[in-house]
Amino acid sequence: MILDKVNSPNDVKQLSIDELNDLAQEIRELIIKKVNTTGGHMGPNLGIVDATIAMHYVFNSPKDKIIYDVAHQCYTHKILTGRKDGFINEKDYYKYTGFTAPSESEHDLFQIGHTSTSISLACGVAKARDLKGEHHNVIALIGDGSLSGGEALEGLDNAATLDSNFIIIVNDNDMSIAENHGGLYSNLKLLRETEGQAENNFFKAWGLDYIFLKDGNNIEKLIKTFEKIKDINHPIVVHIVTQKGKGLKQAEDNKEAFHWILPGALDAQPATNTSVETYTSITSDFIRNKAKQDSDFIVVNAGTPGVFGFNSTIRAELGKQYTDVGIAEEHAIAYCSALAKSGAKPVFTVMSSFVQRTYDQMLQDWCLNKSPMTMLVYWGGISGADATHLCTFDMSLISNIPNMVYLAPTTKEEHLAMLNWAVEQKEYPVAIRVPNVNLISTGIEDKTDYSKINKFKVTQKGIKVALIGLGNFFGLAQEVAKKISETLNFEPTIINPRYISGIDKELLESLKGDHSLVITLEDGILSGGFGEKISRFYGNSGIKVLNYGADKEFTDIVPVKELYSRYRLTPTQILEDIKNLLA
Amino acid sequence: MILDKVNSPNDVKQLSIDELNDLAQEIRELIIKKVNTTGGHMGPNLGIVDATIAMHYVFNSPKDKIIYDVAHQCYTHKILTGRKDGFINEKDYYKYTGFTAPSESEHDLFQIGHTSTSISLACGVAKARDLKGEHHNVIALIGDGSLSGGEALEGLDNAATLDSNFIIIVNDNDMSIAENHGGLYSNLKLLRETEGQAENNFFKAWGLDYIFLKDGNNIEKLIKTFEKIKDINHPIVVHIVTQKGKGLKQAEDNKEAFHWILPGALDAQPATNTSVETYTSITSDFIRNKAKQDSDFIVVNAGTPGVFGFNSTIRAELGKQYTDVGIAEEHAIAYCSALAKSGAKPVFTVMSSFVQRTYDQMLQDWCLNKSPMTMLVYWGGISGADATHLCTFDMSLISNIPNMVYLAPTTKEEHLAMLNWAVEQKEYPVAIRVPNVNLISTGIEDKTDYSKINKFKVTQKGIKVALIGLGNFFGLAQEVAKKISETLNFEPTIINPRYISGIDKELLESLKGDHSLVITLEDGILSGGFGEKISRFYGNSGIKVLNYGADKEFTDIVPVKELYSRYRLTPTQILEDIKNLLA
Repeated sequence: MILDKVNSPNDVKQLSIDELNDLAQEIRELIIKKVNTTGGHMGPNLGIVDATIAMHYVFNSPKDKIIYDVAHQCYTHKILTGRKDGFINEKDYYKYTGFTAPSESEHDLFQIGHTSTSISLACGVAKARDLKGEHHNVIALIGDGSLSGGEALEGLDNAATLDSNFIIIVNDNDMSIAENHGGLYSNLKLLRETEGQAENNFFKAWGLDYIFLKDGNNIEKLIKTFEKIKDINHPIVVHIVTQKGKGLKQAEDNKEAFHWILPGALDAQPATNTSVETYTSITSDFIRNKAKQDSDFIVVNAGTPGVFGFNSTIRAELGKQYTDVGIAEEHAIAYCSALAKSGAKPVFTVMSSFVQRTYDQMLQDWCLNKSPMTMLVYWGGISGADATHLCTFDMSLISNIPNMVYLAPTTKEEHLAMLNWAVEQKEYPVAIRVPNVNLISTGIEDKTDYSKINKFKVTQKGIKVALIGLGNFFGLAQEVAKKISETLNFEPTIINPRYISGIDKELLESLKGDHSLVITLEDGILSGGFGEKISRFYGNSGIKVLNYGADKEFTDIVPVKELYSRYRLTPTQILEDIKNLLA
Repeated sequence: MILDKVNSPNDVKQLSIDELNDLAQEIRELIIKKVNTTGGHMGPNLGIVDATIAMHYVFNSPKDKIIYDVAHQCYTHKILTGRKDGFINEKDYYKYTGFTAPSESEHDLFQIGHTSTSISLACGVAKARDLKGEHHNVIALIGDGSLSGGEALEGLDNAATLDSNFIIIVNDNDMSIAENHGGLYSNLKLLRETEGQAENNFFKAWGLDYIFLKDGNNIEKLIKTFEKIKDINHPIVVHIVTQKGKGLKQAEDNKEAFHWILPGALDAQPATNTSVETYTSITSDFIRNKAKQDSDFIVVNAGTPGVFGFNSTIRAELGKQYTDVGIAEEHAIAYCSALAKSGAKPVFTVMSSFVQRTYDQMLQDWCLNKSPMTMLVYWGGISGADATHLCTFDMSLISNIPNMVYLAPTTKEEHLAMLNWAVEQKEYPVAIRVPNVNLISTGIEDKTDYSKINKFKVTQKGIKVALIGLGNFFGLAQEVAKKISETLNFEPTIINPRYISGIDKELLESLKGDHSLVITLEDGILSGGFGEKISRFYGNSGIKVLNYGADKEFTDIVPVKELYSRYRLTPTQILEDIKNLLA
């Protein structure tokens, strides 16, 4: 194996073109085997193998600084920078994260997992170099899908003002996670078709120098191109065309499905078990039905339709009642707010981690204008995810915005009732945290009038202790209640608050009579979250309050079980705390 | 007066070109007189008088929808749409807000005061029209300064995908608030110089149709241009060149100073009273000195240098140690984070209201990476501002981000010590809320080691009641203490917490001994803020806690005094609450 000889970028520089090509082949095999075992980003990594090898052949990392966008395409980079063990040895498969990590290597500059950051970060790296009078190359590697994000575009605008070495490699594979959308992609297409010669050039229009390479999977040509622009004294865009999923037929043929795969995707038969209902599937069904019934209804997402189950069949079916704005969450909120203000019924679907990109738009474009749009927040909750993709911040972020009604359903029926209310009402900005647990169905239609804002629901009337279980954690409240009943011989009160963004003062006041302790349970950070509002409410009273949820911290691939134990989120721990306090 | 005949856009359509020109002159006089009396946006409004008249002559508002960016250039629009009384009669000067307001008129679609929103909002308005099968023009009016914001750029990308009527009027006056920065402005310059004929065309590169008009203050030509593109069946950019401040010599000559003016700016002698120290002036002095001493130091802002006292002299003096990224807060955070990670010492200065545009960059690009950059947040606190420019959300937004150290100084010496510590340390992401009160100086150097995170300072050790006065509200804590001492005959404890983003558990624990009530005072929304964290801490104890701060609401030009009274923030009200609780 060529790879046996490669332990650092320096070793790459000693290889012949033939050996580099063999190296690429070996790396592809490792990536395919590992990703099929562990799950992860398949297509993006296979597409960029050759360019990564060429970069390390031409540039001198870590002296030269390579900044990866999203960083989900860094596997080859990791293999070439001393971390191949994590791709060769099955036992080491989990040794390194799936994103760049400065804690792992001096070749990784930033821990990043959201898109569209590389150009701005690289601008700062270049400016620091210039302030210090140092000399080295600064390279941002960004995929076409990431280019549409506001941060990347702000970065392009500022990159053009640098008057020193700055290299932006645009990895153009004509795909975001799903197909690309937006005017800039028409231009990339035009540039591909004209081999970079078209008069209208998106990058030159910003004042950036520009060079085009159509064979972005040809190591020899990549090397020649990179050598040409190495040590350049001004900003330049290197537009390379690559094939997403290159070297794996399934991934080449089905780029969207193989962008990120679950373990065993290559072995598995096509999933046929569509009979199991999930909160995602019932939401998708609701959306399809609503679209059929009401031509004013429209569903919008920002570049991740697969997360919401919007496959190409459903997208085609929705037609003009579907908009994928590309990676552009800020635009999505403003767009939907205006749709709602103009009498349409927009639903914006977004992952908890990515809603973070749009606070000001939620506050100003949407909630200040009281537009009755609906936002569905997916995947919210404590998880074993990478630090870059935690979904614990959304409640703290969203629920403190004035006018916002943020809902947390606990059953299928509640979710559908809230969803329908949100879409049809004309008074409130509404967000719904789609439950991130197994679906629970009561079988009984929920006829609640959700326009009675902040009305909590008592599901069990008891004494002494009141358990307020929010959304995903309503089940935990029930479990704790059971334990109390079994061991302390009384029935506590159980409350489903339903509203994350406000409190039911009347109900909380009424608890004072025969309760001495109120417990809040929320699946997100406590800091700025739901429980603290309950603590504030009872601050002037004799009622004691315990808030359970996540600490304010970045966790990085820590198993959920360990996190629950750390945060004292197991029924046993909570019972223990209750006993201590009642004693 | 021509204006006597104009009560709605329909009346504008009846006038001859000569009359329209006279109307423009009359409107300019009204704007100059009113803005010089009330303060407000002078330059932007004077520059766009003619184009606004032409828009209302050609298009049929409110059937045709005009969406204003920032909306601080809407005065002529207000005058022409039934609100001229607010500009003619001195007694009515405060009848209408300085931004578009749907509550005032059907001609105003959104309440907006932040930049870069118009294109995205207009996309939603256009899409709703198309869903409903309606037919009318949708027009976004955006200034060149606003174009660099990520939301505007995401909007341009998506606008290009619309296949129906969509008009973006780019009001190019070659100025943001200060001079423009970034690659796109080089292109606008090129387009101005070539009268729109240059090969590199920023707008065409997105796939947008394009038309250029150099005489953007010539009503006749504006009308001809607008008539040409009225009812167009696809997206088009109309690039008009206007003169900021047109018709007022001082504003034409000094565009930055006359962007927004205080009352009486035209009458006043140049301000000479520079001897009064403010937190802004001492911060600016610190920055200038630090830059001289340390070539690694750099100060960054996003298009509003005047707010921080960075006039053109200071900007020139700072040289390459100064970056204005233009309106691009997302980029600014990533840029500074990378500067800090690369060994430079960046300080990013930003207004509280605009820091809202960058939550994900603070969380991911900055705090996840623990970059030791410094952010200075100005103008934070409860104010009588427009709903679009409230500065009450920053603490709730920033302080719940992991790793962030958010500081609230209370004196000159504390502020300078924190500032110096933040810039020199290498461990923490640090934000400082620059006090928004009159400067207080102790005259004694603060030698605190701020790396002892979350260490509160007891400034008066007392009994029964502990008053925790955060930042701007430390003085309020002292006032309340005085009232307690005078009327209840004991000395309460006074605490300066200094850290917004964490609590001093040891100190709070120690208060339990001889205190029964803890009061928190913060100059921002309570929801998700500082006080709730104290309430959470004491939830399991017998200590009572009262949190004082702003409600979670949008207030719109409500006098501070009224807000303080509403939120029970006067010493008398707080004393009353304490008496009730201690009774």
